[in-house]
Amino acid sequence: MTSRRRARRKGKDSRTRTAHSPAFINRKIPFFEFLAETDLQLIEDQSEWLMQEVGLEFQDDPEALTLWRAAGADVTDTRVRAPRGMVRKLCATAPRQFTQVARNPSRSVSIGGDSQIFAPVYGAPFVRDLRGGRRYGSIADFEKLIKLTYQLPSLHHGGFVTCEPCDVPVSKRHLDMLYVHMRYSDKAHLGAITTKERAEDSVAMARIVFGEAFLESNCVILGNVNTNSPLLVDKVVTEAIRVYCGSGQGIIVAPFVLSGAMGPVTTAGSIAQALAEGMMCCAYSQLVRPGAPFVLGNFLSSMNLRSGAPTFGMPEAVMSNYIVGQLARRLGVPLRCGGALTASKISDAQAAYESGDSMHSTALAGSNFTLHAAGWLEGGLCTGFEKLVMDADRLGAYEVLLKGLPLDTDTLARDAYAEVQPAGHFLGSSHTLRHYETALFEAQLSDSENAENWQENGSEDMQQRAFKRWNKLLDVYTPPPIDPALDDALKEFVSKRKAQLPDQWY
Amino acid sequence: MTSRRRARRKGKDSRTRTAHSPAFINRKIPFFEFLAETDLQLIEDQSEWLMQEVGLEFQDDPEALTLWRAAGADVTDTRVRAPRGMVRKLCATAPRQFTQVARNPSRSVSIGGDSQIFAPVYGAPFVRDLRGGRRYGSIADFEKLIKLTYQLPSLHHGGFVTCEPCDVPVSKRHLDMLYVHMRYSDKAHLGAITTKERAEDSVAMARIVFGEAFLESNCVILGNVNTNSPLLVDKVVTEAIRVYCGSGQGIIVAPFVLSGAMGPVTTAGSIAQALAEGMMCCAYSQLVRPGAPFVLGNFLSSMNLRSGAPTFGMPEAVMSNYIVGQLARRLGVPLRCGGALTASKISDAQAAYESGDSMHSTALAGSNFTLHAAGWLEGGLCTGFEKLVMDADRLGAYEVLLKGLPLDTDTLARDAYAEVQPAGHFLGSSHTLRHYETALFEAQLSDSENAENWQENGSEDMQQRAFKRWNKLLDVYTPPPIDPALDDALKEFVSKRKAQLPDQWY
Repeated sequence: MTSRRRARRKGKDSRTRTAHSPAFINRKIPFFEFLAETDLQLIEDQSEWLMQEVGLEFQDDPEALTLWRAAGADVTDTRVRAPRGMVRKLCATAPRQFTQVARNPSRSVSIGGDSQIFAPVYGAPFVRDLRGGRRYGSIADFEKLIKLTYQLPSLHHGGFVTCEPCDVPVSKRHLDMLYVHMRYSDKAHLGAITTKERAEDSVAMARIVFGEAFLESNCVILGNVNTNSPLLVDKVVTEAIRVYCGSGQGIIVAPFVLSGAMGPVTTAGSIAQALAEGMMCCAYSQLVRPGAPFVLGNFLSSMNLRSGAPTFGMPEAVMSNYIVGQLARRLGVPLRCGGALTASKISDAQAAYESGDSMHSTALAGSNFTLHAAGWLEGGLCTGFEKLVMDADRLGAYEVLLKGLPLDTDTLARDAYAEVQPAGHFLGSSHTLRHYETALFEAQLSDSENAENWQENGSEDMQQRAFKRWNKLLDVYTPPPIDPALDDALKEFVSKRKAQLPDQWY
Repeated sequence: MTSRRRARRKGKDSRTRTAHSPAFINRKIPFFEFLAETDLQLIEDQSEWLMQEVGLEFQDDPEALTLWRAAGADVTDTRVRAPRGMVRKLCATAPRQFTQVARNPSRSVSIGGDSQIFAPVYGAPFVRDLRGGRRYGSIADFEKLIKLTYQLPSLHHGGFVTCEPCDVPVSKRHLDMLYVHMRYSDKAHLGAITTKERAEDSVAMARIVFGEAFLESNCVILGNVNTNSPLLVDKVVTEAIRVYCGSGQGIIVAPFVLSGAMGPVTTAGSIAQALAEGMMCCAYSQLVRPGAPFVLGNFLSSMNLRSGAPTFGMPEAVMSNYIVGQLARRLGVPLRCGGALTASKISDAQAAYESGDSMHSTALAGSNFTLHAAGWLEGGLCTGFEKLVMDADRLGAYEVLLKGLPLDTDTLARDAYAEVQPAGHFLGSSHTLRHYETALFEAQLSDSENAENWQENGSEDMQQRAFKRWNKLLDVYTPPPIDPALDDALKEFVSKRKAQLPDQWY
């Protein structure tokens, strides 16, 4: 006990823990090969069958059909069918790994291969926090969320619509969101996709930040779009691909499939369908610009078939994460899947169980770009402030896991047994003192005190600690430096475009 | 929307879901091979070095030393050193897989190989529930917990000390606990180990249930003991092994190592030490009776090195689960590791995040016998009634995951695309109607309703739903049938032994 106390005192006095902020995770552990080769081939065969026999609809965008026809696909009305093997071959020009350059170059992220990055929830119209309750998101909420994302070391990427700023017209809010990302963070982020013009505004603002020439040979911004499963690709997708990939930037395309609704109720069928949709979009991106950065999304979840409500963190989705990881590696493109997903309305145990199983499998599956890795509540309808920092805390644990076991003579601790006898303890041993500052992950929001101390400290649950933490983070927030001329140029662009655009609220 | 409603109505009317209760899980998915062969060899080499050069203390039990000496080990005072390779060779007679017969034979469990079973928390002196708060466990609490375990389909095994019945003298409580397991459940369970006499009482009561001859060739009860890490095996362990294995029954030996206290602060070192301790105990069990059922335990967790408090569900423990799975398979003995572990005092998000990561890795690692799979709070000091049913709900999800992806022509759903067109939906399709009752796991305690419905229903968190659920389970509890003559014989044994034993409270 004496040396335990000694270790504790020493810890309190001398340990100055600084937030470690690697730009991305360099994975050192193997992938979990969930399905056998023959099973993977069955799924791929089903995807090829879908692309050849059923085909995908490419609607409201004749330009897309022209590209497909020129590439040799069978185009009948708006239905595009691709002969077996054609799409996989087209996908081959997409890079296995690429870099998204951030405004702060030390925060540039590698996407693909053995690198993995985490980004917050995307697209929620509502926000929730312990004091303010549930409400529509505002631009003030949005700004806070971007500032928090900037400060959380396990969020490597800013995402984009961390909540919908519902107090700004739909037609203009992309400009405000882009400005907030560019001004209040220096992490890489995504751009708008809802219309072609908004995507173009996103690339235009990125050109202001990085310079026109830089974008020709560097990816600095990506769009993130969903197909309309089953098997429909509308012009939101094809135009976003043309805007982003056409200007040398990247695109993430994620079929959003709830098994039983937008895909077969059987997981195998939904995985194969999502693969076909993703591959067709990848091929299309390579028709637009061979070599364009593409991330294969695969967002599969389940439903409660009594109520029709989507469910998250369930075993079918967990399985699909592991499997789509295998399929993406075989295709040779970076993967986006999973996240810290839940159907819970609040940051309770349900939220954490579901998010935990979802995110554990997402991380192990090798998702290279993980959107929704923090802050997701209510099936994605709500961004939780507490949930954001709680999830981010756990993301730090996945980072440690993905980096693998430090294994050498020193970590095997042979020398420790010269000091520590059977029935002794290692607390004060020189091996422990040599390693204790780095050997074990230290969660910020987990309380490991005994029951008595915990009660004396107010019997707080994790949500209450999280509430304090995000408020404290905002209190100490300092914006990253920015060249005032750049700031002015961004402001000018936003104000000019806002003056040109009508106020539309839907 | 019409067919969604139709599917929902149909679901509500016709779907009679019965709790599926397989006796154990027959794993169909691969193991996650976390470490490479050369790394595993480094750990095993360190274990061999520990056994040969440092040795283990076998204290207070000269009989154990006699057995070791006869087997050719180097015994100096109470230190036992085994030359490289000797222990692994002795372990080879332990069965890779064995059956523990339950009072209800349809609940007999297979332990080892591809089978996995879940059992509740073991050894907590406190209990907690939403109404009664935190308190010392009583025999009344214990009885409720055994009844709940009996009713929860994902708990395949009864465990033993689901809470300490602190209102019964220590010297007698094993008798009451055994009777409650034998009377109010018909699942397999463990026996007492704290003294040789209590272990003998446990085997004696099993003989009353199954008959003396049956025990000679069938395992019906096991003990579960911890070594005194580092490197000390006391007589509680060696005597329990002699009582259980000596009478043809089984033993689980689990080094309980918090890295930095009872083992090196570096995870690699703690894993190697725990392997050495477990292997020495396995070898000893085979010296007592070659072929005796043995389960290699490996309970590793971390510490908060500022406070000295144990932490659970952290990445080092998650890694160690995956790795000890590999080591146990290489040794060729069944494994016990992990569980739904947490340092949280209550069933909040912390408890669920930590339990989720811990249990996800436990399940995937191939833990054959998972103690603490449900109900654990406060680092094992407290059994949570809500936590028990919450964890058990999630265990159902791991069962689905471990059974793997149903993959064939039918689940690939090729025929569904004749009915469902691009941009259509699968809700009313005949493929969906054919599969929807079994395709997706349905959690009992996850609320997937939208925010409005959830609020109308009282804005309950998962704990509140769990409170209702365990109370309802107790309301509808019906004991399994028992031959009145057997019941009388058990009661008579308990009352006779209680009369012989003094009241001891420590």
